[in-house]
Amino acid sequence: MTTARFDVIGLGNAIVDVIARADDGFLAQHGIAKGGMTLIDAHRAKVLEDALADTTIVPGGSAANTIAGIASLGGEGAFIGRVHADWLGEGFAAGTQKIGVHYDTPAATEGAPTARSVILVTPDGQRSMNTYLGASVEMDEGDIDAAAIGAAKILYVEGYLWDTDRLKGAVRKAVAAAKAAGRLVALTLSDAFCVGRFRAEFIELIETDIDIVFANEAEITSLYETEIFDEAFQNARATGKLFAITRSEKGAVICQGAAVHLIDAIPGVTVVDTTGAGDQFAAGFLYGVAHGLGLAVSGRLGVLAAGEVISHIGPRPIVSLKDLAAGLI
Amino acid sequence: MTTARFDVIGLGNAIVDVIARADDGFLAQHGIAKGGMTLIDAHRAKVLEDALADTTIVPGGSAANTIAGIASLGGEGAFIGRVHADWLGEGFAAGTQKIGVHYDTPAATEGAPTARSVILVTPDGQRSMNTYLGASVEMDEGDIDAAAIGAAKILYVEGYLWDTDRLKGAVRKAVAAAKAAGRLVALTLSDAFCVGRFRAEFIELIETDIDIVFANEAEITSLYETEIFDEAFQNARATGKLFAITRSEKGAVICQGAAVHLIDAIPGVTVVDTTGAGDQFAAGFLYGVAHGLGLAVSGRLGVLAAGEVISHIGPRPIVSLKDLAAGLI
Repeated sequence: MTTARFDVIGLGNAIVDVIARADDGFLAQHGIAKGGMTLIDAHRAKVLEDALADTTIVPGGSAANTIAGIASLGGEGAFIGRVHADWLGEGFAAGTQKIGVHYDTPAATEGAPTARSVILVTPDGQRSMNTYLGASVEMDEGDIDAAAIGAAKILYVEGYLWDTDRLKGAVRKAVAAAKAAGRLVALTLSDAFCVGRFRAEFIELIETDIDIVFANEAEITSLYETEIFDEAFQNARATGKLFAITRSEKGAVICQGAAVHLIDAIPGVTVVDTTGAGDQFAAGFLYGVAHGLGLAVSGRLGVLAAGEVISHIGPRPIVSLKDLAAGLI
Repeated sequence: MTTARFDVIGLGNAIVDVIARADDGFLAQHGIAKGGMTLIDAHRAKVLEDALADTTIVPGGSAANTIAGIASLGGEGAFIGRVHADWLGEGFAAGTQKIGVHYDTPAATEGAPTARSVILVTPDGQRSMNTYLGASVEMDEGDIDAAAIGAAKILYVEGYLWDTDRLKGAVRKAVAAAKAAGRLVALTLSDAFCVGRFRAEFIELIETDIDIVFANEAEITSLYETEIFDEAFQNARATGKLFAITRSEKGAVICQGAAVHLIDAIPGVTVVDTTGAGDQFAAGFLYGVAHGLGLAVSGRLGVLAAGEVISHIGPRPIVSLKDLAAGLI
């Protein structure tokens, strides 16, 4: 194993967030399910964008958000994900590189436009997401930079990528590259519905190739088909793999074989927007693991980063996580 | 080890609760700290009782409440604690025996009157406790029925009993009787202030004589002098003893060596009065241990019993815990 250039390399859907304030009337007029995440097509994305006067456009996407958190902690991050060669794709690349993240997946010149999520924030602070996956789900093996993956201590993969065979081919190549270089492979289960669709594959993959699993309560209980958290926890422990399970206001549970750590959530945080909580928890935890800080400190970095991101709108930190974590890192 | 006649025998302060509704004006007039537990003398207890028109008088006391929970679960419970031969003492004995608990500690004919806690419930549901310990703290070795202790699977002792040397003598005799009979000894840390006073003694006792420790978050973090729950949890695990740690709305953590169980609180409970939550958690958990139901089910019995008692005024169950736990026991 050679020296690692990166702490973590993320593999995920490259999505641009188009954030706008809207009232309940706008949601009703456009038939948008409040608080939900709905997949939409290109036409509908354009209709929504045209109807919105004032939008904020920022790079998003689950694994990409995590890598942004790694950078905010002062770590070295890289990201692989496909955009299209359009102005949103250019914005995603520029915004990603600006924060110090290594990103050079070539923008596609054919196929669908760049993925975007039109996020409507209502006056009550709720957000409703309308996601067009576009170019991101057209990523394939050709986009996988095996050398970059071999140069990262940890490969971090979104469960969302199991949705198409083409993406799965890209994941397989990435995992093989990490394994060949003796690196760790981390998986986030991403979404309880996602777990429902790919339960058997995820369970087998965890047994074979995965070293670190991220899940929230809904995802881990779905994975092991139980309503009782403790039963899911016992199943996770029995694998011997490293699990980091987030439990909202109950904090996080870290386990690996005999080791179990119970990490409290940061107290006194006013929750403005929980989007990105899981992504930033993963950022803090993976930073800790990559830097050999131990499971307890890694868990505390996770809840610290999650506590920052839920205190404001948007899925990425707005203050330096490195400053916030002074004393821990 | 012979067949056990009792599941659990409790050793604690025998206290009668004198519960009355009062308004904030009454508290102010009598200089009572709202929401607190204040130790008072016999004179002050009489003044308060005389000033209250309408009181409900019921048996209380931490370990005694736990044994009442054991009985409500259909288990066999016994209690040791000293009352005085006065009408409150007779009421304590009659009320304890009525629910099927074995209780025959002789009522003292000399010394202080029966202990009582004057509990004032304000219209906002808060309760303020004013406790006169009276005869309960005059318990001594002579009150310890070694044969009854030897006939119980588990001896359960209140940390409150460390407050006087006389009580400690009684505890020592009781623990020796349990050990001689090959029984389990359980300790509740009772109160964070209590832990602060007897930290070194408790830590040594846990290493030597105790098999099962009950604590809440404030008590366990005080015991191990840390503000970080996970650090206290690691210290508890390192002892190898069985710990049952309650965390209010976060549920309970059970650990013993390699085993760790994370038990969720009962969802959807409207909290009316948290007094007795720890006592009833201990009842459910000890019932499960005494009946060999395993740590996970024992923990679930604990949160079930705690969830019942916090949904109403008073520190003992008002419905049959046995019926409530159908399916688990």
